[in-house]
Amino acid sequence: MRIDVLSLFPEMFEGVLGSSILNKAAEKEAVSYMVTNFREYADNKHHTVDDYPYGGGAGMVLKPQPIFDAVSALKESSGSKPRVILMCPQGERYTQYKAEELSKEEHLIFICGHYEGYDERIRTHIITDEISIGDYVLTGGELGAMVVIDSVVRLLPGVLGNEESPVKDSFSSGLLEHPHYTRPADFRGIKVPDILISGNHALIEEWRIKESLRRTLTRRPDLLENFPLGEKEKKWLDEIKKEEK
Amino acid sequence: MRIDVLSLFPEMFEGVLGSSILNKAAEKEAVSYMVTNFREYADNKHHTVDDYPYGGGAGMVLKPQPIFDAVSALKESSGSKPRVILMCPQGERYTQYKAEELSKEEHLIFICGHYEGYDERIRTHIITDEISIGDYVLTGGELGAMVVIDSVVRLLPGVLGNEESPVKDSFSSGLLEHPHYTRPADFRGIKVPDILISGNHALIEEWRIKESLRRTLTRRPDLLENFPLGEKEKKWLDEIKKEEK
Repeated sequence: MRIDVLSLFPEMFEGVLGSSILNKAAEKEAVSYMVTNFREYADNKHHTVDDYPYGGGAGMVLKPQPIFDAVSALKESSGSKPRVILMCPQGERYTQYKAEELSKEEHLIFICGHYEGYDERIRTHIITDEISIGDYVLTGGELGAMVVIDSVVRLLPGVLGNEESPVKDSFSSGLLEHPHYTRPADFRGIKVPDILISGNHALIEEWRIKESLRRTLTRRPDLLENFPLGEKEKKWLDEIKKEEK
Repeated sequence: MRIDVLSLFPEMFEGVLGSSILNKAAEKEAVSYMVTNFREYADNKHHTVDDYPYGGGAGMVLKPQPIFDAVSALKESSGSKPRVILMCPQGERYTQYKAEELSKEEHLIFICGHYEGYDERIRTHIITDEISIGDYVLTGGELGAMVVIDSVVRLLPGVLGNEESPVKDSFSSGLLEHPHYTRPADFRGIKVPDILISGNHALIEEWRIKESLRRTLTRRPDLLENFPLGEKEKKWLDEIKKEEK
């Protein structure tokens, strides 16, 4: 996969793309990253990338020209039909389903604004996807792009080794994770539940499913609506509802 | 505000905390950041921070000792009662309301796991808040912590200058932003709506509210449920519903 990022703050990406799994994925050649400052594409003397909004008001708006031309150049150099992703609060809410969808693409281009709004013509004529990572206000699209990149790259074949596979991903199973414990069994007087050191694997598995159901019920009951419950799980869920009252 | 981060990958934070608004906020002394590798606090010979899960299974689990001791040391050095925030998929869904709440604190400590699960005793005995930035799987808590830090720090008094105030924040008004346009009025044949260059400010304001309502209705109708609509807005919304059919 090829990943291009257009940003006015390319230095924000170095630490993140150069560490841990994202770096290893590049070393394994599962992905290549290029972060481009789209100011380089501004065709005016002062390399201006933004201007005042038509109709007045506070704030600045990103001009169409630098971004149109940067995206054209990236498309031409790759010869691919990339997904062109605008990070913005008005976008589709990002989920694991979208991460899985994007992980099947050959080329992703992320456009990150910073402070400014975007000229609407960027939205209507270049963009294939608008993504929001959540209902909160960030200074720019850079952190959102890093979040999407991390969640997509770790899904690429061969990227995650055994040691990096999480104990069990929340969301990928549809339920929240059960609690985990490691040594010591007694840490400053706080003890691990007996069942986990009982050696009875059937009971441990049952405890884990129940605690996963309990945590999902108490914290994110909306996730249970789409979860296919078996007979056993239904019974446990009824027990948990009584216990949690 | 003082912000501490506990992470096994401190180098991930440099580019983000050292750029743009987050860097300016530190220069203005509105905030100070310290990123600590909690491996330094591991009291065993090999500085091990994780171990196998009780009860078996794949993946590793962060041990309680290094994190307990790191948080104790940070609390002692600050003399404050910090919010101790665990970034994890099981946490409360992060929103702008939470950003506003956290921006009133004196001291935040973020705990970022990476690949691993957390020993449950960290959750039950140290943590004041568990936060998830969205329903997707990330390699670690680091990007989530950066997202929360960015959204909180930009709310601190004196941090945002005029040039950085967004045209109008989505979510802070309760509706999604209307479209923006800047020069040229005709970009490669794609034109700015006539009304925005009409000079009629009352009509422009009306157009903006209507387009803001339209975008919210078509993209995020859930946001309208909690939005207090006046008589005019109700009428416009009815018109938009007919137009969008």
